[in-house]
Amino acid sequence: MPEIRYNFLKDTYVIFSAERAKRPHDYFREPEAEIGIVEKCPFEYGNEDKTPPEVFAIREKGTKPNTPGWKIRVVPNKYPALKPEDNFLEKQEGLFKKFTGYGYHEIIIETPDHFKQIYNFSVEEIKLLLISIKNRFQEISKDKNIKYIQYFKNYGKEAGCSLFHSHSQIIATPLIPKEVATKISQLKGFYKKEKSCYLCKEIDFELKENKRIVYENESFIAYCPYYSIFPFEVRVIPKKHSNRFDNINEKEMTFLSKALKVITQKIYKTLNNPAFNIILYTNPVNTDIEHIEKFNHWYIEILPRVNIMAGFEFGTGWYINTTYPEDASQFLKESDI
Amino acid sequence: MPEIRYNFLKDTYVIFSAERAKRPHDYFREPEAEIGIVEKCPFEYGNEDKTPPEVFAIREKGTKPNTPGWKIRVVPNKYPALKPEDNFLEKQEGLFKKFTGYGYHEIIIETPDHFKQIYNFSVEEIKLLLISIKNRFQEISKDKNIKYIQYFKNYGKEAGCSLFHSHSQIIATPLIPKEVATKISQLKGFYKKEKSCYLCKEIDFELKENKRIVYENESFIAYCPYYSIFPFEVRVIPKKHSNRFDNINEKEMTFLSKALKVITQKIYKTLNNPAFNIILYTNPVNTDIEHIEKFNHWYIEILPRVNIMAGFEFGTGWYINTTYPEDASQFLKESDI
Repeated sequence: MPEIRYNFLKDTYVIFSAERAKRPHDYFREPEAEIGIVEKCPFEYGNEDKTPPEVFAIREKGTKPNTPGWKIRVVPNKYPALKPEDNFLEKQEGLFKKFTGYGYHEIIIETPDHFKQIYNFSVEEIKLLLISIKNRFQEISKDKNIKYIQYFKNYGKEAGCSLFHSHSQIIATPLIPKEVATKISQLKGFYKKEKSCYLCKEIDFELKENKRIVYENESFIAYCPYYSIFPFEVRVIPKKHSNRFDNINEKEMTFLSKALKVITQKIYKTLNNPAFNIILYTNPVNTDIEHIEKFNHWYIEILPRVNIMAGFEFGTGWYINTTYPEDASQFLKESDI
Repeated sequence: MPEIRYNFLKDTYVIFSAERAKRPHDYFREPEAEIGIVEKCPFEYGNEDKTPPEVFAIREKGTKPNTPGWKIRVVPNKYPALKPEDNFLEKQEGLFKKFTGYGYHEIIIETPDHFKQIYNFSVEEIKLLLISIKNRFQEISKDKNIKYIQYFKNYGKEAGCSLFHSHSQIIATPLIPKEVATKISQLKGFYKKEKSCYLCKEIDFELKENKRIVYENESFIAYCPYYSIFPFEVRVIPKKHSNRFDNINEKEMTFLSKALKVITQKIYKTLNNPAFNIILYTNPVNTDIEHIEKFNHWYIEILPRVNIMAGFEFGTGWYINTTYPEDASQFLKESDI
């Protein structure tokens, strides 16, 4: 069973995952996301038995679970960071505090095509991904032990990806993570003073300034935040206030798919196929926070990993960004996608 | 002039460094820390004019500044993230807040030997590095605009190092960084309740448990913290309570040098020459925080970079660690250094 230890000095948590336990020489070389041999890839058609049984899939009519015929498939991670076993318990270990590693860790296999990556997906294919995320959010949040569901995608070795076949991940945690708590506290403070959602204000400001916007459609706007921690960081956010990703409707999903297609293509082209993370920020679940529906505003971040976190960043929690977002957005806007 | 922008959502700061501004294709490939051509290395004997003039050096008697004859040399970074120019000013930019990029960014060239790395330094050579850090801390803290001085070393490409010749860095900031503020707030909270220093308690606990200790000498103890964020993370900490690194005396410097030599050698050997960061955590400067001398306790962290920060870590501020510190310390202890 994995365990979660409280890091008192950072006021955050560390998941220790026994299933993934490694000996020193497993670290000798970080495995690259090698293209590998198609037949051996656990995410291929026909290799459905190489993953744990699927918990969700979109399939051709008449095909059975865990057989070919799927368009997108969600399975528990074979080596989960967190698992929905036993109870969620806190335990004091002398001076230290730890918890059982309760939670969920799932893999979304985004396509049966071994060679297709997200920037080559059709709008319809990206939409299948959004439908899957929404479904898993709704299912997992039924477990009252879960307080936050983190969707993320690691693309490329420098972004933490070790399997080439296009996939993303969901990790559901039994506590509200620090970054989420900080954000909520900041947004709540703003709401108390200004009686409005900070991110709605920011969207208005960005539209008025028009210096950092990369793309816009009926429902979504994409811009490089004023305070981007990384070069070419892009936020994709619904223009209409909404605190939960899983409230997204059919039409909005189409617009979000279009936005994600354009942005991932622009990043692919402008930065010559860099590694990147896609991260969803949304509402905690099974938690009562007064007025959160008014001050929280969900969004997606695309973080190209062209810089490396070094000693300064770890020591201070500050970032050094070598490209102003005003320049980054200009470069991305000008790329002919 | 660089600028510092406030990141409201994360409640932290981002340094935008114009001197280091890059166009998209500068990111096409992260430069490796290539060994390079010795004669062209700006950190070689005879190439002193390739760096800005030195601000500190330990030299053979009779040699002049910015000429050969030095054993260790500190110079301003040619492409500084922060600069001590103009005034430190806050400015509102519509919805956003920014500051002038005031501060210091210096390079410590640790040896004239192009090929020698820290794990091959003698105890005396490591001591020269400690003397240099202490000197620069004392000098830079005379500038009342400076609130924190961050010493760090990036070794290897994955740790953010792009120049092979052994060096480390100092960045002095005009605000207390977030990680430092969080730590102070946590330690202060503990002190208020327990009337003692948390880290003194932790050292006692680690000594009693004896499950995570890697090395110990008269003045210092080195252990893998219970809540390590990375595999094989090691903390080197003075056993006697002290809130400021720059209070270190001659004898303690010798013991710290010995500890750092052993730990870097063990990490080099156990993990087969991994990239790592060395980070110093100490007191803020020019800031009055009641009782900080009682509850703050300086230390050094060595972070091997064998894992990659991925989408989950950025989204949540949590970490996934695949090696328990109890195992990591055992592996390090057993290595025959």
